[in-house]
Amino acid sequence: MTKYVYLFKEGNKDMRDLLGGKGANLAEMKNMGLPVPNGFTITTQACNKYYEDDKKIDKNIETEILETITKLENETGKKLGDKENPLLLSVRSGSPISMPGMMDTILNLGLNDEIARNLAKDEESIRFIYDSYRRLIMMFADVVKEKGKDAFEKLIEDKKEKRHVKNDLELTAEDMYEIAMDSKKIYKKLTKENFPEDPKVQLLEAVKAVFRSWNTERAVIYRKMNNISDTLGTAVNVQEMVYGNLTDDSLTGVAFSRNPSTGENNLYGEYLEKAQGEDIVSGVRTPKSVEAMERDYPAIYKELKDISKILEKHYQNMQDMEFTVEKGKLYILQTRNGKRVAKAALTIAVDMVNEGLITKEEALMRIEPEKINELLHPTFDEQALKEAKQIAQGLPASPGAVSGKIYFNVKDVVNAKKQGIDPILVRTETSPEDIEGMNSAVGILTIRGGMTSHAAVVARGIGRCCISGCHDITINEEEKTMTIGNITYHEGDNISLDGQTGTVYEGLIKTSDISISGDFEIFMNWAKEIKKLGIRANAETKQDTKNAFKFGAEGIGLSRTEHMFFEEKKLLAIRKMIVAKTKEEREKALKEILPIQRHDFEDIFRAANNHKVTIRYLDPPLHEFLPKTKEDIDKLAAVLNMTEEEMTETVENLKEFNPMMGHRGCRLAITYPEIALMQTTAIIEAAIAVTKEGYTVYPELMIPLVGDVNEYLYLKNIIIEAINQIFDSYKMKIDYEIGTMIETPRGVVESDKLAKEASFFSFGTNDLTQMTYGFSRDDAGSFLEDYYEKGIFKQDPFKTIDTEGVGKLLIVATSLAKKANPNIELGICGEHGGDPKSIEFFNKIGLDYVSCSPYRVPVATLAAARAVIKERE
Amino acid sequence: MTKYVYLFKEGNKDMRDLLGGKGANLAEMKNMGLPVPNGFTITTQACNKYYEDDKKIDKNIETEILETITKLENETGKKLGDKENPLLLSVRSGSPISMPGMMDTILNLGLNDEIARNLAKDEESIRFIYDSYRRLIMMFADVVKEKGKDAFEKLIEDKKEKRHVKNDLELTAEDMYEIAMDSKKIYKKLTKENFPEDPKVQLLEAVKAVFRSWNTERAVIYRKMNNISDTLGTAVNVQEMVYGNLTDDSLTGVAFSRNPSTGENNLYGEYLEKAQGEDIVSGVRTPKSVEAMERDYPAIYKELKDISKILEKHYQNMQDMEFTVEKGKLYILQTRNGKRVAKAALTIAVDMVNEGLITKEEALMRIEPEKINELLHPTFDEQALKEAKQIAQGLPASPGAVSGKIYFNVKDVVNAKKQGIDPILVRTETSPEDIEGMNSAVGILTIRGGMTSHAAVVARGIGRCCISGCHDITINEEEKTMTIGNITYHEGDNISLDGQTGTVYEGLIKTSDISISGDFEIFMNWAKEIKKLGIRANAETKQDTKNAFKFGAEGIGLSRTEHMFFEEKKLLAIRKMIVAKTKEEREKALKEILPIQRHDFEDIFRAANNHKVTIRYLDPPLHEFLPKTKEDIDKLAAVLNMTEEEMTETVENLKEFNPMMGHRGCRLAITYPEIALMQTTAIIEAAIAVTKEGYTVYPELMIPLVGDVNEYLYLKNIIIEAINQIFDSYKMKIDYEIGTMIETPRGVVESDKLAKEASFFSFGTNDLTQMTYGFSRDDAGSFLEDYYEKGIFKQDPFKTIDTEGVGKLLIVATSLAKKANPNIELGICGEHGGDPKSIEFFNKIGLDYVSCSPYRVPVATLAAARAVIKERE
Repeated sequence: MTKYVYLFKEGNKDMRDLLGGKGANLAEMKNMGLPVPNGFTITTQACNKYYEDDKKIDKNIETEILETITKLENETGKKLGDKENPLLLSVRSGSPISMPGMMDTILNLGLNDEIARNLAKDEESIRFIYDSYRRLIMMFADVVKEKGKDAFEKLIEDKKEKRHVKNDLELTAEDMYEIAMDSKKIYKKLTKENFPEDPKVQLLEAVKAVFRSWNTERAVIYRKMNNISDTLGTAVNVQEMVYGNLTDDSLTGVAFSRNPSTGENNLYGEYLEKAQGEDIVSGVRTPKSVEAMERDYPAIYKELKDISKILEKHYQNMQDMEFTVEKGKLYILQTRNGKRVAKAALTIAVDMVNEGLITKEEALMRIEPEKINELLHPTFDEQALKEAKQIAQGLPASPGAVSGKIYFNVKDVVNAKKQGIDPILVRTETSPEDIEGMNSAVGILTIRGGMTSHAAVVARGIGRCCISGCHDITINEEEKTMTIGNITYHEGDNISLDGQTGTVYEGLIKTSDISISGDFEIFMNWAKEIKKLGIRANAETKQDTKNAFKFGAEGIGLSRTEHMFFEEKKLLAIRKMIVAKTKEEREKALKEILPIQRHDFEDIFRAANNHKVTIRYLDPPLHEFLPKTKEDIDKLAAVLNMTEEEMTETVENLKEFNPMMGHRGCRLAITYPEIALMQTTAIIEAAIAVTKEGYTVYPELMIPLVGDVNEYLYLKNIIIEAINQIFDSYKMKIDYEIGTMIETPRGVVESDKLAKEASFFSFGTNDLTQMTYGFSRDDAGSFLEDYYEKGIFKQDPFKTIDTEGVGKLLIVATSLAKKANPNIELGICGEHGGDPKSIEFFNKIGLDYVSCSPYRVPVATLAAARAVIKERE
Repeated sequence: MTKYVYLFKEGNKDMRDLLGGKGANLAEMKNMGLPVPNGFTITTQACNKYYEDDKKIDKNIETEILETITKLENETGKKLGDKENPLLLSVRSGSPISMPGMMDTILNLGLNDEIARNLAKDEESIRFIYDSYRRLIMMFADVVKEKGKDAFEKLIEDKKEKRHVKNDLELTAEDMYEIAMDSKKIYKKLTKENFPEDPKVQLLEAVKAVFRSWNTERAVIYRKMNNISDTLGTAVNVQEMVYGNLTDDSLTGVAFSRNPSTGENNLYGEYLEKAQGEDIVSGVRTPKSVEAMERDYPAIYKELKDISKILEKHYQNMQDMEFTVEKGKLYILQTRNGKRVAKAALTIAVDMVNEGLITKEEALMRIEPEKINELLHPTFDEQALKEAKQIAQGLPASPGAVSGKIYFNVKDVVNAKKQGIDPILVRTETSPEDIEGMNSAVGILTIRGGMTSHAAVVARGIGRCCISGCHDITINEEEKTMTIGNITYHEGDNISLDGQTGTVYEGLIKTSDISISGDFEIFMNWAKEIKKLGIRANAETKQDTKNAFKFGAEGIGLSRTEHMFFEEKKLLAIRKMIVAKTKEEREKALKEILPIQRHDFEDIFRAANNHKVTIRYLDPPLHEFLPKTKEDIDKLAAVLNMTEEEMTETVENLKEFNPMMGHRGCRLAITYPEIALMQTTAIIEAAIAVTKEGYTVYPELMIPLVGDVNEYLYLKNIIIEAINQIFDSYKMKIDYEIGTMIETPRGVVESDKLAKEASFFSFGTNDLTQMTYGFSRDDAGSFLEDYYEKGIFKQDPFKTIDTEGVGKLLIVATSLAKKANPNIELGICGEHGGDPKSIEFFNKIGLDYVSCSPYRVPVATLAAARAVIKERE
């Protein structure tokens, strides 16, 4: 018979699929002898069975839960429902993959009128018991009955107002009693039922509620955003209560074994005195830092620090712990690998390797490639920062430097994002409902909450710049304004956030260049040592080329000549070429373009000194360069001395039914060889000029969209002929290669023939994906959403390579090509070249390199190293 | 050392690649002991070497030619250039594949002033010699010097006018002498050279001219039209002259061993008395039929008939012979397999099988599948014919029944064709320059020329209806009119031609249905016995479905539901469905469509009784159904009670960047399952209704454009669910199958997974070709011409399957599918399904059936049988 309930002592850290992350770690800590309150975990299988059974708890599982309660009573010496010595419980969710704040928790379970009355002996205990009791009622109404907390929280606010006090702690024992009793009335009013006095009923209802919380809308969205499977299910942890709000020497807090923002190897965290854990996470009160604990509670601080080191060594990773101190005794309520910003992650990883705690390979596996992106977030330009106006100071909750327009709710942020605006979400405090808005915002600013508040944790998780606890600000949500001192900022006003310092500035601030240095450099060098795939960058300007090499590129894998043409000056020359009616006119226009393009290539070759540069011949349908609006058409017609009718007709004639499947790629060069010849001249003359300056150039000339070896040969022959003529006239030669892009399925089928004639292949996986599926990126929007919703597609094939379809074609092409030409160089230059999952696949099938945008070079480098490590395992 | 020159006795019929068709057959006949004038053949290799050597005859080849002349002199006992007993020669082209009239000929070579003077002894011989001499000078000026014949022919015309005679034969010996001498003067005037008196110079110049004629524009066009390789080259046949124009008992003619128009087993042909061969072909004089020869020259007739039977038996094929009778002695100048119209070809093939001359397989291999198309040419409706006005009577030169508008030159015909008009080319006589116009015309009408004139031969070759020798008509090319009696018809006037009877009618005449009967039926039954591939038809109307089965289809392989929607009444319902803003609106519109579509399917099922019908779900991008013009948009907006702005916006929103790669195929059904469900209901309810009437239906439901097994499964599941509901509500079941189209390369890759879930695959090779190459049919026009010209593509991949690319994908899909599901049925329904070359490939890779348009079913059936025969060999 399946076992659905495990006492902590029956589990261990490797059982996270069954017990969830929290349950597995509680079990592990229990078995390590650490001070963990007793308890047990109901498995994720029980959750899945609950859904299979149409949202009912199976009778056998119910029995198993109640039997385990008996065991827990034996362990604790307390008894559920007992008047004198009642067992009070927390019920918390815990899924195999952490979904912070996404699911529900109920505390103080087991209390009822009779027990409360019995335990309430003096002013102090009355206050505590009824505070606990009213919290239970509120959480039960919220979580189990889905009636929210507002009506209950209002009771506290009203009472505080009545008593003219500001802090909960100032309310009297009698106040708390009255609030608890009023809570029960409100409960009845909202639910049309009495609050259940039977602790077993409370427990089973709470368990079911946690199961249900697996499928709340926000949990589902979170999983979708993070690619977490819906079938994992959540476990439920039932644990003896310990109270951080019991006495003056009771605390509750959150600690990290190292600093999650900087990586510094020092206990880091926050706590509240006389509070329950939820008070920290919700950001209702701003907590104290653990430095204060070192001063005020040195013994507890030492114990906590020691435990953090034990756990860190045990887990070989930085730990994020929840703890409670009840009457001076420390309990650890949870530990998990701590989320950290990329910079901290790097520092921690490098430190841990140096400390001998983990290997370089383990360090590389610790950091998801996408995380590296955060390090390429810009910082503010120093000079610009000096001149900027500081308007507020908060906590540096998540690093980054962003400028944007302020919005005060999720909907407005999402809308702004859709309009291409960089929105900053400004909130009193954030809650799980705000996830979508936080995701859409470039930065998050909250008034309340500390470094471990919801806003801070989520922002770090998703790599958003965040400043929390910025008390200087007052928000008016209705008016959509925020006021600092006597200045009021309105929706849409520009501000800037420095997540590194917690400073808020007025207006937009220029950002400065990024560099790879320090721990980042050390870490990336490890990745470079291990990876096999070459990492090149797609670049076609001097600046992009320079950036590419700064970020570690080993070559330029794709230089798209057409991208050079979109500057206004060049565009006119190109347009003259396109509207040319005869070969002679076209050649005349091309002569104008030649020096411009040659100059561009000289710049690129200099920036790419000593590296290969793969240059693609003109690729897109020509009409892309033509004017679209009537104004532009008229303007061009005037410049070119054509009538508007002629120009309109020319533009119309160039239109295609399916431009993606039209006159583009090598087809352009075949019908207009003079274009390819001009480009060849520009490339080779530039290479010669730059070589004479002392640079070393390796141009690779790439013929795009080839589907038939005859297309390739026709162009290869005329290109070589042109190059030899140039060599003759300059009386010098340079090294160069000619190769092709494999972008059509027919190119794949023809790979053997092509490989015999080409020095290299570059797989254009964007087009190859389009042709293989038979849908274009531009048009797929109208149905792909339905595909995801209906579970037909799991992911966007334009983002992550479709290993089952397009990937199989790549394997075919790779194998045909290598057989035909063992020396052929095989690379990839589609969007997939910068996608970690895709890179893993490209490593596996034995490509030589990937090429991606300059800013993704570090991501790709790390992904390539991890692919090698994964393969070894 | 390569041998470049072969005496006839050194060759045989199997050497046609080297000696050309004419040369090989002359050699064969020589060795059979038939009366062939002596001669030799210069090989096609010599022609190719001529081009390799930059249009020069290699010295060694020249020597070999002159040495062979000496051998020929020994054989004939005559001597080149000898005054007393001169060897006179003809020089004719002859390529491995017959290109009738495409290349040049020079006769009477070896004559000069001295020889002419010496041979001219009396009135008769003077007349003959100087006629021959002036012909040599004219042909030499035309062929070698490219100065045309006009100036020379004018000499004859002028002389006839001067002498007030109508016929060349009426000119005197002195007239001929003067014409010859004047011809030499004109020759000098045109070429600035004297006519070469040295017979060896004449010979070598003539040989070079024949080589050059291989690459005249009309020869190049002819080869392109007929897919003949440019690298074959032409041989040159040098042969002793025999003279059909020497004496009164000299004749020249053309004969077929059987009738090339009807297939009747009887000598058929025409001759002219006292004429040279060119006079027959050019149609200058209208010849007598061989029946007249039987009467006037019974001995020659018998010899000719006997030789024709010998040759026919030897070649096991109907022969087309050229002959000349010189002073009562018969010479065969050429034999070749005779071109024949399809009907004759069938009769001859069936007769020859019955005569035991050839096997059924040989009979099937005799007739190119495309030829069958001619038999599906319509004939005039009998009733309509009775009422039509006969305006002229000519010779039934090539069968068919066409109506069209008259045009008087090639250019006008080609232009008319481009405008979608059915043009009829009306010419005094046609010449090789008219090929393009004959090809563009639906019919050809000539005033002069017999059944073997240029017009007749070419028309039969390309399957055009043709009436020749229609003397009733006078043409005015300048005015672009033709006059019959006192009625004048102008360019663009409608006439009708009955190629079967030679009758010309005024106006347009309705054509009647085609039937497969008689020899055609016998022949098609042989094909059916032998073929392995099933032949189905693409049809979506009752009429098409009926036709399909009449033409021998074995099922409906593709019924495109969208084709049913283009009728105006249905279109409105469809448009309502498309512009629906909600699912409810859409379902309401679909309810209107359901009964219409059900009715369509009932019609099809009845017509397809006992056969499978593969029905494809809605496939094209929806916007195809929307109004395009402003008028149509306004009209639709009014009907649907929308504003014009709303309608315009709706239409705009539905537009796609690349409709071919957009929201179409199964993607439509996935986003709008209600469409697929309506279609399922229509199909299944129609099947049930028709089954109740006593018909037997086998619907195969086909899901188009599938690239991922999940797409297929999603739709398959909802379709089956819907069908089961219908079965429940009707309390009856019918057999049906569900399968998919493989049209995307990803569908190919996914074939194993799909085959496990599908009862059948139908390869949509149109789309598969588009996606594999990455170019669309609509857009490829702008560059494919360049591809053909530059030799990059040999043929249109949308017409004949690209076996190297798309074909390899078909092999992959077939093999994956059969492995995964040995019972799967595999067919093809693209344009390629009706293309004989493609069918050969489909047979080879083991498909179960092809589906093509109803009119191509016989062609496909024959092609499928021939594929089996070829495979056996």
